[in-house]
Amino acid sequence: MVNYVDRETILCISLAARPSNHGVRFHNWLYDTLGLNYLYKAVAPTDITAAVAGIRGLDIRGAGVSMPYKQAVIPLIDVLDPSASRIGAVNTIVNTDGELVGYNTDYVAVASLLKSHAVDPSLPVAVRGSGGMANAVVAALADHGMQGTVVARNHETGPSLASRVGWDYSAEVPAEAGLLVNVTPLGMYGDKEHAQAFTDDSIASAAMVFDVVAYPVRTPLIRAAERLGTPTINGGEVVALQAAEQFALYTGVRPTSEQVEAAEVYANQP
Amino acid sequence: MVNYVDRETILCISLAARPSNHGVRFHNWLYDTLGLNYLYKAVAPTDITAAVAGIRGLDIRGAGVSMPYKQAVIPLIDVLDPSASRIGAVNTIVNTDGELVGYNTDYVAVASLLKSHAVDPSLPVAVRGSGGMANAVVAALADHGMQGTVVARNHETGPSLASRVGWDYSAEVPAEAGLLVNVTPLGMYGDKEHAQAFTDDSIASAAMVFDVVAYPVRTPLIRAAERLGTPTINGGEVVALQAAEQFALYTGVRPTSEQVEAAEVYANQP
Repeated sequence: MVNYVDRETILCISLAARPSNHGVRFHNWLYDTLGLNYLYKAVAPTDITAAVAGIRGLDIRGAGVSMPYKQAVIPLIDVLDPSASRIGAVNTIVNTDGELVGYNTDYVAVASLLKSHAVDPSLPVAVRGSGGMANAVVAALADHGMQGTVVARNHETGPSLASRVGWDYSAEVPAEAGLLVNVTPLGMYGDKEHAQAFTDDSIASAAMVFDVVAYPVRTPLIRAAERLGTPTINGGEVVALQAAEQFALYTGVRPTSEQVEAAEVYANQP
Repeated sequence: MVNYVDRETILCISLAARPSNHGVRFHNWLYDTLGLNYLYKAVAPTDITAAVAGIRGLDIRGAGVSMPYKQAVIPLIDVLDPSASRIGAVNTIVNTDGELVGYNTDYVAVASLLKSHAVDPSLPVAVRGSGGMANAVVAALADHGMQGTVVARNHETGPSLASRVGWDYSAEVPAEAGLLVNVTPLGMYGDKEHAQAFTDDSIASAAMVFDVVAYPVRTPLIRAAERLGTPTINGGEVVALQAAEQFALYTGVRPTSEQVEAAEVYANQP
């Protein structure tokens, strides 16, 4: 199949140490569906400074930024959107006439889901995890007006993340909380896919369960919540929303949730 | 049509102030036909230094270089192939693990055609034109062992080009020569499409006629030579050969002349 590219085609890229095909398929499928003359290409840079120079020099419209570059790009770009400065991590760069602005659409997506699911800000939260994504999630929860506990086995990143938002830190999973949030790999495809991040008892007494794991969407935690009748927000919603947000930043066009869902199906085909 | 791109796709680009769609269509069609996971994209850079930095930083495999950048890229790359250093102009950059080598495939194509058409090196040559392409053509002719005259109305570039290879310079078209070469726009689509670069008398007494104009391939000069029975080399051969050369440098695969011809047909469709 001849690639449909002409001199007007606008190029977007992803920068990751080990790129997947997901973003490439997701974005190119939506470009086609929405009739946008764009092309998305995954790049595995050897030098992140040179790669960001390349965004400017080759007039790349947008770049998704993955591990391990989310902090490294900050001194290389011109402006930090509040979504990125709030958590000190950029996952999206937008180039407008040579000015590079860094966003964090993970933060934006989580903040948006807390609103759309009408999450009660007075619920006490327990968040498992203290990595990069936990950073974005906890910031969005705190900015939603919530208080809670960061639960992590890592005695450095855990207390550090908790103190950044004035929350408690615990090495042990609490017996109960109003909102249970999993931002660890527990339940993800692989050697932890059968692990359930919170107990049935905790889930039964919670008002809501939020699992950031997206592969699979129906993790043991989500399935237990469904079984026990506790409302959920799942990782598929986070992935779709952050990708739609990124897509809208690059193109100015916001895909519908049906289009995002269809793009996800296409992107996840073998 | 969803662009068929994945994380392994190798990206090549063109750098031109006013990109055409020709290269994009030509290369992408051949990639598809030959089953190569490559993509070609035209770029109109605002800063050539930043653009060459982008070739390194985003791991672009190859870049076609058009006016006005053929000289400007020289200090920005690592190595000049003899084809480029011979004439001080680069039209192709190849990036191998971060080392950028500059080539001139116009020179390579003309040199190759002089050999494949078994042009007698003892024929006296008359070359009309003294621009960038004339530079490449005259160098290839001189390196083929030929002597002759540069014919140009420009009293600076004409004598300068002639003296570089120890040829004569003339402002007037000579009455006759063994090989007549046109490297001016005479005969090209546009306001000069009816102009014939050499007279019927000159053509009749020449052993061969070489017209670099490719659009159309059958210029008034080529048509007159066909009518008068003088053998020809045409601009279509130059364009196809330089493009095939460039393609081989990027991919390591040399398309057949039938494939190049079919790619040209595809590239020139409206």
